[in-house]
Amino acid sequence: MSSLLHIEVSPGGEHSVSRSISAEFLTAWSAKHADGKVISRDLAANPIPHLDGEAIFAGYTPEDQRSSTMVAKHTFRHELIAEITGVDEILISTPMWNWAIPSVLKAYIDQIILPGTLDGSGADGLKGKKVTFVVSQGGSYAEGAPRHGWDYETGYLKQFATALGATDVEVILAELTLAGIVPAMESLIPQKEASIAAAKSAAKARAAA
Amino acid sequence: MSSLLHIEVSPGGEHSVSRSISAEFLTAWSAKHADGKVISRDLAANPIPHLDGEAIFAGYTPEDQRSSTMVAKHTFRHELIAEITGVDEILISTPMWNWAIPSVLKAYIDQIILPGTLDGSGADGLKGKKVTFVVSQGGSYAEGAPRHGWDYETGYLKQFATALGATDVEVILAELTLAGIVPAMESLIPQKEASIAAAKSAAKARAAA
Repeated sequence: MSSLLHIEVSPGGEHSVSRSISAEFLTAWSAKHADGKVISRDLAANPIPHLDGEAIFAGYTPEDQRSSTMVAKHTFRHELIAEITGVDEILISTPMWNWAIPSVLKAYIDQIILPGTLDGSGADGLKGKKVTFVVSQGGSYAEGAPRHGWDYETGYLKQFATALGATDVEVILAELTLAGIVPAMESLIPQKEASIAAAKSAAKARAAA
Repeated sequence: MSSLLHIEVSPGGEHSVSRSISAEFLTAWSAKHADGKVISRDLAANPIPHLDGEAIFAGYTPEDQRSSTMVAKHTFRHELIAEITGVDEILISTPMWNWAIPSVLKAYIDQIILPGTLDGSGADGLKGKKVTFVVSQGGSYAEGAPRHGWDYETGYLKQFATALGATDVEVILAELTLAGIVPAMESLIPQKEASIAAAKSAAKARAAA
């Protein structure tokens, strides 16, 4: 039985482009894996707290000397790690905010990377897993675009997954999503629509592959 | 009278390398600006919440239709914006976590970048301000290092400041801070110490310039 961890970030609900693309992935994935198990984690509905001093220092404090909040925070990290390391596939769907991932997704990453348990040193935490990122960007950061080089998200997500050992990593990108919302981008609506359609096709193909 | 917004991120307290470097900056800055005003914001002691749907959609909701939590979240963003746009200089001191800024600093950035109020479109929000970042990194991501290209932090911080209009931007970097903590990095302790000393000198010089 295949299993998939599906992490959703956007608070945009039905207006969210990234959610509309991951929905295509999920439909295709469920069709392929009739008895597959999907674990959903919606970071908009249930945000992950920032990694704080107590959570960090719990790992360096002998178990019998940890406060109850230290224990709770440390246990939570291990639960998240067990969840992501226990599945065959990972789908993370997110917008870009301010040229990078939203803080709640970074909080997730900061919580699960734990020295000695899940870290980049052994590089085997996500080994053998198929990792797919769905990313929506308001503008275009492609080669030749005026803002090429401003994207600190797609490269970072690949970095995160590969540093933890994943080798089958794909980023499915929809760009120019602010066309039709920001007046100055009116002329880019056809390109936006083509980009979203291509991303949906790619998501379906990736899920079925 | 000069004013400085000082943002601190590390939860490491007296063990924090980034805090030890920003402390040198602050001492030199206060010496130069005898009647200067420093506004301190400690994100370890007082974390900034993630930007959530309510906070975002408040901006698109007519004022008389906003819920009380929407009003509070929207007001908070405007307070943060007034704070950073009201000073002459900005000092942000942070570690690198998992190849990027900690989530709490991204939450700060997500909160202050607000379309129509402080955004990259006019590129004048931080125009004329002197912006200094102090960054500590556990390893080395310098050219020639095995992990060159894994640093999604220093470039991003420059991107953030320059996109908002700042032209006088400097990143002061201390690297290899895990030497002496991680056994495999034992031989790098002298390089770590040299890097921290150089960062402290750079911080003092920057503050006095």
